[in-house]
Amino acid sequence: MTVAVRLLITGGTFDKEYDELTGTLYFKDTHVHEMLRLGRCRLDVAVGTVMMVDSLEMADADRETILANCRQAPETRIVITHGTDTMVETARVLAAGAGDKTIVLTGAMVPYAFGSSDGLFNLGSALSFVQVLPPGVYIAMNGSCFRWDRVRKNTTLGVFEEIPD
Amino acid sequence: MTVAVRLLITGGTFDKEYDELTGTLYFKDTHVHEMLRLGRCRLDVAVGTVMMVDSLEMADADRETILANCRQAPETRIVITHGTDTMVETARVLAAGAGDKTIVLTGAMVPYAFGSSDGLFNLGSALSFVQVLPPGVYIAMNGSCFRWDRVRKNTTLGVFEEIPD
Amino acid sequence: MTVAVRLLITGGTFDKEYDELTGTLYFKDTHVHEMLRLGRCRLDVAVGTVMMVDSLEMADADRETILANCRQAPETRIVITHGTDTMVETARVLAAGAGDKTIVLTGAMVPYAFGSSDGLFNLGSALSFVQVLPPGVYIAMNGSCFRWDRVRKNTTLGVFEEIPD
Amino acid sequence: MTVAVRLLITGGTFDKEYDELTGTLYFKDTHVHEMLRLGRCRLDVAVGTVMMVDSLEMADADRETILANCRQAPETRIVITHGTDTMVETARVLAAGAGDKTIVLTGAMVPYAFGSSDGLFNLGSALSFVQVLPPGVYIAMNGSCFRWDRVRKNTTLGVFEEIPD
Repeated sequence: MTVAVRLLITGGTFDKEYDELTGTLYFKDTHVHEMLRLGRCRLDVAVGTVMMVDSLEMADADRETILANCRQAPETRIVITHGTDTMVETARVLAAGAGDKTIVLTGAMVPYAFGSSDGLFNLGSALSFVQVLPPGVYIAMNGSCFRWDRVRKNTTLGVFEEIPD
Repeated sequence: MTVAVRLLITGGTFDKEYDELTGTLYFKDTHVHEMLRLGRCRLDVAVGTVMMVDSLEMADADRETILANCRQAPETRIVITHGTDTMVETARVLAAGAGDKTIVLTGAMVPYAFGSSDGLFNLGSALSFVQVLPPGVYIAMNGSCFRWDRVRKNTTLGVFEEIPD
Repeated sequence: MTVAVRLLITGGTFDKEYDELTGTLYFKDTHVHEMLRLGRCRLDVAVGTVMMVDSLEMADADRETILANCRQAPETRIVITHGTDTMVETARVLAAGAGDKTIVLTGAMVPYAFGSSDGLFNLGSALSFVQVLPPGVYIAMNGSCFRWDRVRKNTTLGVFEEIPD
Repeated sequence: MTVAVRLLITGGTFDKEYDELTGTLYFKDTHVHEMLRLGRCRLDVAVGTVMMVDSLEMADADRETILANCRQAPETRIVITHGTDTMVETARVLAAGAGDKTIVLTGAMVPYAFGSSDGLFNLGSALSFVQVLPPGVYIAMNGSCFRWDRVRKNTTLGVFEEIPD
């Protein structure tokens, strides 16, 4: 069951850092390499940073860039780290254009650089779902995996939940 | 895709603590509840501590106890935290007797209480594989998932690897 | 050398939390109790939360409140956690009015809740300086201790430095 | 108050690592450099690794080596990281031979590599006491500082305590 996985970085809470000079959160480098090392991940993962943005500031053109990266990737199994606020929106764009690939979007409710982050748990989860799910676009957060058209972010509770039939 | 998962604790490196008085590693309580909280896990997980032992000291009777717990569980999807040294041996016992359930064993190379642990990554991974794999017994470690009869622990390298055909 | 120490909390970077719903930093409860537990601190420390504010938003009235707390404290040795941006300003107010007490202000460049925080190091440092220094008002940051009228925050570098003669 | 400090590493719980292959604790490299970086320590600290041993296995010759290192150091202010079990014994040897220097021994009840370590707090504390105390040999643990001949380790409670008159 050894499969090649593409891991695309787009930013989001996941990768936010604390800026000591300004006291605000910002992006520097991705923590994904450190996280894969911590997880002692033995998968064949090719990591690529597509962008480093807050998903609230992601434009249509950014989503097209992510889609293009998915299409061009030689791998058929792709994990994308993404801000949670517009994760579903990006998933919709990918579902319309990414063809026969298995794409799993994931993120974090708390930056990895914080001790209390769910990031490592979510990364382990997304890398697992992507290996076994059939082609399609999914969102994996906090142990659950949803089809892109069956999920919404409940911004009041700060959780992803299934859209009932 | 909301499924009920049973999570059985048996000890292993995963749950080792540092004893300040003796300077040795020992078992106190499981860290699994804290880990599920950290992962903000939203699955329906029923946690049960079966035992807290080093897997090198696990006897045949212990494996029968774990098997009995799998059989009696109302859930058909079960994750077991287990020491890595004899994880494959326990998997074999479960494969012979656990029937139509999906059972995923996982563990850690480094105790969760250490900053550098792979435990949270592995737990996120095991809880994901167990939701989607067909009935059978599997070992999920460091991003990979193996059928119980296709894996061995390479004790020289400290990694799980597939047994070639 | 067992001395009673008063520990006054005023907020600052030290105690900032990450708000999962808004993605911003805010104040909830102080981390000082957890930090004293982690440091296995065996001093006789009385902790009091005076306020929880960003030091850039601290008003003159707030400084008077802190001063009043120092005066009213039965202890003669006081540590104050404080935002770094106006720490020196508060120190000046205290120096003018706190009389014969030893007061050490400290803080953090990175919130304690971040893995990479200097908070625990600074707290251990401030609690040590306060036990042995003569009456006066001091700022203890990153291993150094300065008299209140000999220090400034270099906001370009994000460090406290001595004011040359 | 900028002073040059010598920091001598001798091992102890402080620097113990977890060996993934054997599941035991051992010594590799010191964590002191990482800790000084985390504490954003701005002191002029010269770090030297004298040995990496469990203090229960420290021989008389080892203590002579530590003493020789203290004597040869150009600095008059020295912090020594040391296992807690025989810290007082080493302090006695140093007190007999180290002359007019201020020497502070410190350590940790839990290895720094564990999330729950008191190491960073103790290091911040020791580096502070050493700057302001008069010549002599001291033990700084968990916020307190004791003269070498006024302290013992209570091995039942796992704490250092003052020897009453």
